[in-house]
Amino acid sequence: MKKTFTALITGATLAAVAGAAFAEPAKSEDLIKWRQSAYQVLHWNMDRLKANIDSPQYNKDDGIKAANTIAAIANSGMGSLFAAGTETGKGWHPTSVKPAFFTDGKKVGEVAVAFNKEANELAKVAATGDAAAVKAQFGKVGQTCKACHDDFRRKD
Amino acid sequence: MKKTFTALITGATLAAVAGAAFAEPAKSEDLIKWRQSAYQVLHWNMDRLKANIDSPQYNKDDGIKAANTIAAIANSGMGSLFAAGTETGKGWHPTSVKPAFFTDGKKVGEVAVAFNKEANELAKVAATGDAAAVKAQFGKVGQTCKACHDDFRRKD
Repeated sequence: MKKTFTALITGATLAAVAGAAFAEPAKSEDLIKWRQSAYQVLHWNMDRLKANIDSPQYNKDDGIKAANTIAAIANSGMGSLFAAGTETGKGWHPTSVKPAFFTDGKKVGEVAVAFNKEANELAKVAATGDAAAVKAQFGKVGQTCKACHDDFRRKD
Repeated sequence: MKKTFTALITGATLAAVAGAAFAEPAKSEDLIKWRQSAYQVLHWNMDRLKANIDSPQYNKDDGIKAANTIAAIANSGMGSLFAAGTETGKGWHPTSVKPAFFTDGKKVGEVAVAFNKEANELAKVAATGDAAAVKAQFGKVGQTCKACHDDFRRKD
Protein backbone atom coordinates (compact mmCIF):
# COMPACT_ATOMS: atom_id res chain seq x y z
CA MET A 1 0.00 0.00 0.00
CA LYS A 2 1.10 3.53 -0.65
CA LYS A 3 0.96 6.10 2.06
CA THR A 4 -2.31 7.91 2.49
CA PHE A 5 -2.42 11.67 2.45
CA THR A 6 -2.57 11.72 6.22
CA ALA A 7 0.65 9.79 6.47
CA LEU A 8 2.13 12.17 3.92
CA ILE A 9 1.26 15.09 6.14
CA THR A 10 2.13 13.66 9.53
CA GLY A 11 4.95 11.36 8.52
CA ALA A 12 3.81 9.24 11.44
CA THR A 13 3.40 5.98 9.60
CA LEU A 14 5.86 6.59 6.82
CA ALA A 15 8.04 3.60 7.64
CA ALA A 16 5.04 1.33 7.92
CA VAL A 17 3.55 2.16 4.56
CA ALA A 18 6.44 2.68 2.18
CA GLY A 19 7.13 0.54 -0.82
CA ALA A 20 3.89 -1.13 -1.79
CA ALA A 21 1.69 -0.55 -4.80
CA PHE A 22 -1.69 1.05 -4.14
CA ALA A 23 -3.40 3.29 -1.66
CA GLU A 24 -4.84 1.32 1.20
CA PRO A 25 -8.66 1.19 1.18
CA ALA A 26 -10.07 3.30 3.98
CA LYS A 27 -11.00 1.40 7.11
CA SER A 28 -14.67 1.05 8.08
CA GLU A 29 -14.00 3.14 11.17
CA ASP A 30 -12.72 5.97 8.98
CA LEU A 31 -15.68 5.75 6.62
CA ILE A 32 -18.11 5.96 9.54
CA LYS A 33 -16.15 8.84 11.08
CA TRP A 34 -16.11 10.70 7.77
CA ARG A 35 -19.84 10.33 7.17
CA GLN A 36 -20.58 11.43 10.74
CA SER A 37 -18.31 14.41 10.08
CA ALA A 38 -20.06 15.27 6.83
CA TYR A 39 -23.41 15.26 8.62
CA GLN A 40 -21.97 17.56 11.29
CA VAL A 41 -20.84 19.96 8.57
CA LEU A 42 -24.44 19.92 7.32
CA HIS A 43 -25.64 20.45 10.91
CA TRP A 44 -23.31 23.45 11.31
CA ASN A 45 -24.50 25.05 8.09
CA MET A 46 -28.20 24.33 8.59
CA ASP A 47 -28.02 25.83 12.10
CA ARG A 48 -26.04 28.77 10.76
CA LEU A 49 -28.51 29.40 7.95
CA LYS A 50 -31.46 29.09 10.33
CA ALA A 51 -29.91 31.66 12.67
CA ASN A 52 -29.28 33.94 9.70
CA ILE A 53 -32.87 33.61 8.45
CA ASP A 54 -34.18 34.30 11.95
CA SER A 55 -31.99 37.33 12.51
CA PRO A 56 -33.40 40.84 11.97
CA GLN A 57 -30.82 41.45 9.21
CA TYR A 58 -30.32 38.57 6.78
CA ASN A 59 -26.66 38.34 5.70
CA LYS A 60 -26.57 37.42 2.01
CA ASP A 61 -22.87 36.52 1.93
CA ASP A 62 -23.08 34.24 4.95
CA GLY A 63 -26.22 32.66 3.52
CA ILE A 64 -24.38 31.89 0.28
CA LYS A 65 -21.49 30.31 2.16
CA ALA A 66 -23.81 28.13 4.23
CA ALA A 67 -25.95 27.08 1.25
CA ASN A 68 -22.94 26.35 -0.96
CA THR A 69 -21.41 24.19 1.76
CA ILE A 70 -24.66 22.25 2.16
CA ALA A 71 -24.89 21.74 -1.61
CA ALA A 72 -21.24 20.69 -1.80
CA ILE A 73 -21.74 17.99 0.82
CA ALA A 74 -24.87 16.86 -1.01
CA ASN A 75 -22.84 16.57 -4.22
CA SER A 76 -19.75 15.01 -2.63
CA GLY A 77 -20.68 11.39 -3.25
CA MET A 78 -21.30 10.31 0.33
CA GLY A 79 -22.58 6.95 -0.88
CA SER A 80 -19.01 5.66 -0.83
CA LEU A 81 -18.96 6.25 2.93
CA PHE A 82 -21.67 3.60 3.32
CA ALA A 83 -19.58 0.79 1.85
CA ALA A 84 -20.17 -2.82 2.79
CA GLY A 85 -18.78 -3.43 6.25
CA THR A 86 -20.03 -0.14 7.67
CA GLU A 87 -23.51 -1.38 8.61
CA THR A 88 -22.36 -1.43 12.21
CA GLY A 89 -19.31 -0.06 13.95
CA LYS A 90 -18.00 3.12 15.44
CA GLY A 91 -16.58 6.31 14.00
CA TRP A 92 -16.75 9.26 16.41
CA HIS A 93 -19.54 7.23 18.03
CA PRO A 94 -21.48 4.07 17.15
CA THR A 95 -23.22 4.50 13.83
CA SER A 96 -26.89 5.49 14.00
CA VAL A 97 -27.74 4.07 10.59
CA LYS A 98 -30.56 1.53 10.41
CA PRO A 99 -29.96 -1.81 8.67
CA ALA A 100 -32.64 -0.89 6.11
CA PHE A 101 -30.28 1.71 4.64
CA PHE A 102 -28.19 -1.14 3.25
CA THR A 103 -31.07 -3.18 1.88
CA ASP A 104 -33.66 -0.70 0.60
CA GLY A 105 -31.62 0.80 -2.23
CA LYS A 106 -34.69 2.16 -3.98
CA LYS A 107 -35.82 4.22 -1.01
CA VAL A 108 -32.27 5.34 -0.22
CA GLY A 109 -31.92 6.50 -3.80
CA GLU A 110 -35.16 8.48 -3.52
CA VAL A 111 -34.18 10.30 -0.33
CA ALA A 112 -30.69 10.97 -1.67
CA VAL A 113 -32.00 12.41 -4.94
CA ALA A 114 -34.51 14.54 -3.05
CA PHE A 115 -31.82 15.94 -0.75
CA ASN A 116 -29.50 16.68 -3.67
CA LYS A 117 -32.23 18.43 -5.62
CA GLU A 118 -33.33 20.66 -2.76
CA ALA A 119 -29.76 21.39 -1.59
CA ASN A 120 -28.70 22.48 -5.06
CA GLU A 121 -31.83 24.62 -5.32
CA LEU A 122 -30.92 26.15 -1.94
CA ALA A 123 -27.55 27.25 -3.33
CA LYS A 124 -29.28 28.86 -6.30
CA VAL A 125 -31.83 30.65 -4.13
CA ALA A 126 -29.17 31.83 -1.65
CA ALA A 127 -27.28 33.45 -4.53
CA THR A 128 -30.23 35.80 -5.03
CA GLY A 129 -30.08 37.04 -1.44
CA ASP A 130 -33.89 36.86 -1.13
CA ALA A 131 -34.30 36.00 2.55
CA ALA A 132 -37.92 34.87 2.25
CA ALA A 133 -37.09 32.56 -0.65
CA VAL A 134 -34.11 31.17 1.26
CA LYS A 135 -36.37 30.51 4.23
CA ALA A 136 -38.85 28.62 2.07
CA GLN A 137 -36.15 26.57 0.37
CA PHE A 138 -34.42 25.92 3.70
CA GLY A 139 -37.68 24.32 4.83
CA LYS A 140 -37.70 22.06 1.78
CA VAL A 141 -34.14 20.92 2.46
CA GLY A 142 -35.06 20.28 6.09
CA GLN A 143 -37.93 18.06 5.00
CA THR A 144 -35.53 15.90 2.98
CA CYS A 145 -33.25 15.62 6.04
CA LYS A 146 -36.22 14.57 8.15
CA ALA A 147 -37.46 12.05 5.58
CA CYS A 148 -34.12 10.27 5.63
CA HIS A 149 -33.82 10.46 9.42
CA ASP A 150 -37.31 9.01 9.84
CA ASP A 151 -36.52 6.03 7.66
CA PHE A 152 -32.85 5.40 8.19
CA ARG A 153 -31.55 6.90 11.45
CA ARG A 154 -32.05 5.14 14.76
CA LYS A 155 -33.65 7.17 17.52
CA ASP A 156 -31.61 5.65 20.36
CA MET B 1 -33.79 31.92 21.95
CA LYS B 2 -35.46 30.38 18.94
CA LYS B 3 -35.13 26.74 18.22
CA THR B 4 -32.08 25.64 16.27
CA PHE B 5 -32.43 23.55 13.15
CA THR B 6 -31.52 20.47 15.15
CA ALA B 7 -34.37 21.06 17.53
CA LEU B 8 -36.62 21.64 14.54
CA ILE B 9 -35.71 18.23 13.21
CA THR B 10 -35.70 16.24 16.41
CA GLY B 11 -38.38 18.08 18.32
CA ALA B 12 -36.41 17.12 21.39
CA THR B 13 -36.03 20.55 22.91
CA LEU B 14 -39.04 22.21 21.38
CA ALA B 15 -40.67 23.06 24.68
CA ALA B 16 -37.44 24.46 26.04
CA VAL B 17 -36.74 26.81 23.19
CA ALA B 18 -40.11 28.16 22.05
CA GLY B 19 -41.15 31.75 22.32
CA ALA B 20 -37.96 33.77 22.61
CA ALA B 21 -36.42 36.17 20.18
CA PHE B 22 -33.14 35.04 18.64
CA ALA B 23 -31.30 31.91 17.70
CA GLU B 24 -29.09 30.71 20.51
CA PRO B 25 -25.37 31.17 19.77
CA ALA B 26 -23.67 27.85 19.17
CA LYS B 27 -21.86 26.43 22.17
CA SER B 28 -18.05 26.26 22.15
CA GLU B 29 -18.27 22.48 22.20
CA ASP B 30 -20.33 22.54 19.01
CA LEU B 31 -17.97 24.96 17.28
CA ILE B 32 -14.99 22.74 18.11
CA LYS B 33 -16.88 19.63 16.98
CA TRP B 34 -17.89 21.31 13.73
CA ARG B 35 -14.36 22.45 12.89
CA GLN B 36 -12.99 19.00 13.69
CA SER B 37 -15.69 17.59 11.42
CA ALA B 38 -14.84 19.99 8.61
CA TYR B 39 -11.18 18.94 8.80
CA GLN B 40 -12.27 15.29 8.65
CA VAL B 41 -14.26 16.04 5.49
CA LEU B 42 -11.05 17.52 4.07
CA HIS B 43 -9.16 14.43 5.24
CA TRP B 44 -11.67 12.14 3.51
CA ASN B 45 -11.45 14.03 0.26
CA MET B 46 -7.67 14.47 0.27
CA ASP B 47 -7.24 10.73 0.92
CA ARG B 48 -9.81 9.96 -1.75
CA LEU B 49 -8.14 12.20 -4.30
CA LYS B 50 -4.70 10.79 -3.45
CA ALA B 51 -5.99 7.24 -3.98
CA ASN B 52 -7.54 8.32 -7.28
CA ILE B 53 -4.31 9.97 -8.47
CA ASP B 54 -2.34 6.86 -7.48
CA SER B 55 -4.72 4.44 -9.20
CA PRO B 56 -3.90 3.08 -12.67
CA GLN B 57 -7.06 4.70 -14.04
CA TYR B 58 -7.76 8.24 -12.85
CA ASN B 59 -11.49 8.82 -12.40
CA LYS B 60 -12.30 12.34 -13.56
CA ASP B 61 -15.79 12.45 -12.04
CA ASP B 62 -14.63 11.30 -8.63
CA GLY B 63 -11.72 13.74 -8.80
CA ILE B 64 -14.13 16.59 -9.46
CA LYS B 65 -16.33 15.59 -6.51
CA ALA B 66 -13.36 15.40 -4.17
CA ALA B 67 -11.83 18.68 -5.35
CA ASN B 68 -15.15 20.53 -5.25
CA THR B 69 -15.75 19.33 -1.69
CA ILE B 70 -12.29 20.49 -0.62
CA ALA B 71 -12.86 23.88 -2.23
CA ALA B 72 -16.30 24.19 -0.65
CA ILE B 73 -14.90 23.60 2.83
CA ALA B 74 -12.14 26.12 2.08
CA ASN B 75 -14.79 28.66 1.10
CA SER B 76 -17.23 27.85 3.91
CA GLY B 77 -16.03 30.50 6.34
CA MET B 78 -14.51 28.25 8.97
CA GLY B 79 -13.13 31.27 10.80
CA SER B 80 -16.41 31.53 12.68
CA LEU B 81 -15.70 28.10 14.20
CA PHE B 82 -12.66 29.59 15.96
CA ALA B 83 -14.68 32.12 17.96
CA ALA B 84 -13.45 33.44 21.31
CA GLY B 85 -13.93 30.77 23.94
CA THR B 86 -12.82 27.92 21.70
CA GLU B 87 -9.09 28.25 22.41
CA THR B 88 -9.38 25.18 24.62
CA GLY B 89 -12.11 22.63 25.08
CA LYS B 90 -13.42 19.46 23.56
CA GLY B 91 -15.50 18.69 20.49
CA TRP B 92 -15.18 15.10 19.31
CA HIS B 93 -11.87 15.24 21.19
CA PRO B 94 -9.80 17.95 22.89
CA THR B 95 -8.92 20.64 20.40
CA SER B 96 -5.46 20.40 18.84
CA VAL B 97 -5.23 24.09 18.04
CA LYS B 98 -2.23 26.00 19.38
CA PRO B 99 -2.79 29.22 21.34
CA ALA B 100 -0.88 31.12 18.63
CA PHE B 101 -3.83 30.59 16.26
CA PHE B 102 -5.80 33.08 18.34
CA THR B 103 -3.07 35.68 18.65
CA ASP B 104 -1.18 35.63 15.34
CA GLY B 105 -3.95 36.89 13.09
CA LYS B 106 -1.55 37.93 10.37
CA LYS B 107 -0.04 34.48 9.99
CA VAL B 108 -3.42 32.77 10.28
CA GLY B 109 -4.71 35.02 7.52
CA GLU B 110 -1.76 34.10 5.32
CA VAL B 111 -2.20 30.33 5.72
CA ALA B 112 -5.96 30.64 5.25
CA VAL B 113 -5.60 32.68 2.07
CA ALA B 114 -3.00 30.24 0.73
CA PHE B 115 -5.26 27.25 1.41
CA ASN B 116 -8.25 28.95 -0.20
CA LYS B 117 -6.26 29.91 -3.28
CA GLU B 118 -4.83 26.45 -3.85
CA ALA B 119 -8.09 24.65 -3.03
CA ASN B 120 -10.03 26.75 -5.52
CA GLU B 121 -7.34 26.16 -8.11
CA LEU B 122 -7.63 22.42 -7.39
CA ALA B 123 -11.33 22.52 -8.26
CA LYS B 124 -10.52 24.28 -11.53
CA VAL B 125 -7.79 21.80 -12.42
CA ALA B 126 -9.95 18.79 -11.49
CA ALA B 127 -12.61 20.00 -13.91
CA THR B 128 -10.17 19.45 -16.77
CA GLY B 129 -9.64 15.80 -15.85
CA ASP B 130 -5.87 16.12 -16.41
CA ALA B 131 -4.54 13.63 -13.85
CA ALA B 132 -0.97 14.95 -13.91
CA ALA B 133 -2.15 18.51 -13.36
CA VAL B 134 -4.44 17.37 -10.54
CA LYS B 135 -1.51 15.57 -8.93
CA ALA B 136 0.63 18.70 -9.09
CA GLN B 137 -2.11 20.91 -7.69
CA PHE B 138 -2.95 18.33 -5.01
CA GLY B 139 0.64 18.71 -3.85
CA LYS B 140 0.26 22.47 -3.59
CA VAL B 141 -2.90 22.12 -1.52
CA GLY B 142 -1.12 19.61 0.72
CA GLN B 143 1.67 22.09 1.33
CA THR B 144 -0.83 24.66 2.57
CA CYS B 145 -2.32 22.05 4.92
CA LYS B 146 1.14 21.25 6.22
CA ALA B 147 2.08 24.91 6.66
CA CYS B 148 -0.92 25.46 8.91
CA HIS B 149 -0.39 22.22 10.81
CA ASP B 150 3.26 23.11 11.42
CA ASP B 151 2.37 26.45 12.92
CA PHE B 152 -0.98 25.93 14.53
CA ARG B 153 -1.69 22.27 15.30
CA ARG B 154 -0.25 20.61 18.38
CA LYS B 155 1.66 17.41 17.77
CA ASP B 156 0.45 15.64 20.94
